[in-house]
Amino acid sequence: ELSALTANPPKNLHGYISNQGLPGARETVGRFLGDLYNHPIYPESVVMTSGAGGALNVVLKSILNPNDEVIVLVPYFVEYKYYIMNAQGVPVYCNLDENFQISVEEVASKITARTKGIIINTPHNPTGCILSRESIFSLGELLKEKEAEFNNPIYMIYDAPYTQLTYDGVENVNPFASYHRVIYASSFSKDLGLAGERIGFIAVDKEIEGHQTLISAFIFANRTLGFVNAPALMQNVLARLDQLVTEQEEYRERRDLMVEVLEEANFEFHKTQGGFFIFPKSPIPDDVEFCRIAVEKFNVLIVPGTGFGRPGYFRMSFSLPLSTIEGAREPLKALRNYFK
Amino acid sequence: ELSALTANPPKNLHGYISNQGLPGARETVGRFLGDLYNHPIYPESVVMTSGAGGALNVVLKSILNPNDEVIVLVPYFVEYKYYIMNAQGVPVYCNLDENFQISVEEVASKITARTKGIIINTPHNPTGCILSRESIFSLGELLKEKEAEFNNPIYMIYDAPYTQLTYDGVENVNPFASYHRVIYASSFSKDLGLAGERIGFIAVDKEIEGHQTLISAFIFANRTLGFVNAPALMQNVLARLDQLVTEQEEYRERRDLMVEVLEEANFEFHKTQGGFFIFPKSPIPDDVEFCRIAVEKFNVLIVPGTGFGRPGYFRMSFSLPLSTIEGAREPLKALRNYFK
Repeated sequence: ELSALTANPPKNLHGYISNQGLPGARETVGRFLGDLYNHPIYPESVVMTSGAGGALNVVLKSILNPNDEVIVLVPYFVEYKYYIMNAQGVPVYCNLDENFQISVEEVASKITARTKGIIINTPHNPTGCILSRESIFSLGELLKEKEAEFNNPIYMIYDAPYTQLTYDGVENVNPFASYHRVIYASSFSKDLGLAGERIGFIAVDKEIEGHQTLISAFIFANRTLGFVNAPALMQNVLARLDQLVTEQEEYRERRDLMVEVLEEANFEFHKTQGGFFIFPKSPIPDDVEFCRIAVEKFNVLIVPGTGFGRPGYFRMSFSLPLSTIEGAREPLKALRNYFK
Repeated sequence: ELSALTANPPKNLHGYISNQGLPGARETVGRFLGDLYNHPIYPESVVMTSGAGGALNVVLKSILNPNDEVIVLVPYFVEYKYYIMNAQGVPVYCNLDENFQISVEEVASKITARTKGIIINTPHNPTGCILSRESIFSLGELLKEKEAEFNNPIYMIYDAPYTQLTYDGVENVNPFASYHRVIYASSFSKDLGLAGERIGFIAVDKEIEGHQTLISAFIFANRTLGFVNAPALMQNVLARLDQLVTEQEEYRERRDLMVEVLEEANFEFHKTQGGFFIFPKSPIPDDVEFCRIAVEKFNVLIVPGTGFGRPGYFRMSFSLPLSTIEGAREPLKALRNYFK
């Protein structure tokens, strides 16, 4: 893809803004990441995109050649598969362990000479877990070894859209400190409760190998994939923000109530550490059947783990008013008892 | 691509809006096209997208299988090539005639059993010409014949972003009346002077074969290509608009002055009929060299026709204040005389 850059012709400017994004918006991104990870990220290392979906498609199109492999940790957000295939890459699935942390041995067994990247998502959809320092740093070590073994660069593609919604003081690990080839490709929209506005970004460390080539490739792919630029108005809004405000406390209350309701009903699950999903075990192995009965008999809308590549579980969202979560208390108990 | 639909799992709704777009925004699109072409287009036949770039990528991803061919009329907006290749299609180039109208014989010679579509752009970038009724309707007839000959559907993909900027009463031809398999994939942004806001749309006639399958495929591709939805805020704005206002009169003045300046300098060109581009002949065959000298010696910024697949011409934009166009009068004269 990088070679396609040479074909990049001039273009007109009628009302369009830079494909890289407004300088002010890129400064806000740099400040946000800098504060979050205590690690400087510069505006010239940032590209504004049309949401996290735009960011990931642009990154994958830029770094992949046809048939290059990208590792996806399972369970996973199903769009990742399409994003990889859009760029003619091959998704390679690798299970997270029973605590939804990275098993370095598992990842090691999936890396080949064609591996070009691994997508990291934390806080994690659908499990609500946050990847630990141990997970991220041992992955970084492994990738360094494998790069040397295959003499081939491997990118850690980091999608962390819920860093402002974390609970119980669990740490957002700084990926840039764990590895030298991190491409941060994520969005603000969810943090700001503005998911529909499609504001995302790509960011790299200023010392990343081939910095300028990467940024140019992202800008080119942003254009040729038809995203062109992140919505101008919201970029302007972002450029004017001093502080990114989220409803963390409100979400913590929802999380706590959801946990209480699920515990009372006797479901087995990991307490959500970040974001607004929770991923309990299905009481029966057939999670699709379980979810069908949940909606048909108990009017409880849940998503089978099978849709995320992990049967035997189901996903719930607590991005809901407290009264709605409270209203699920009795139906969830009845649902659980139905399978006693 | 249509088959991928079956893998489409449920998703959460946190802050997201329908991948098809807000009903109000789709109504505005339907009303806009209905008024423009005197042809009813219904909200359920519209999908909101992230700009025309989003619309075209979504359409191509939805209808193309790998190695399917799409005809592009030359000169052409260079992104079309990338959009087709993004969906693993093959661009097939076909020259417009010397008046920048469609030559049915030329198009006929390019259609094969693998042809899945032809991209129509009118008012045309880079030439500023509007495709005539004769061009569009005779193309429609040809496509009907070729569909029958190859027993294969061929889509007319219609990108008309400047319909509100037309001059001298030249008609915007109704494509839906010319052919039964039209996919309108375009944007409002340019009409409204909001190019940076990324509001585009796809629209089909309610009678198009496989209507619901097509719409579902567009919605699916909108999601899996990572566009997800058109920016929510601007969709809301659109939904509240009674009337789409453009600066037609202002642009006509600019067009008239541009024409006067180019005539005075003795350039050869077709008067712009729509949009804000004009595509004069280069006084020397090497248009790249001509444009290089224009900027270096005369500080005139123009784009070589070679970048649009048509050497021997150059493109100018008059999306500029009148004073800037006036300021180009003497430099353009000097530039022209340099090649006397």
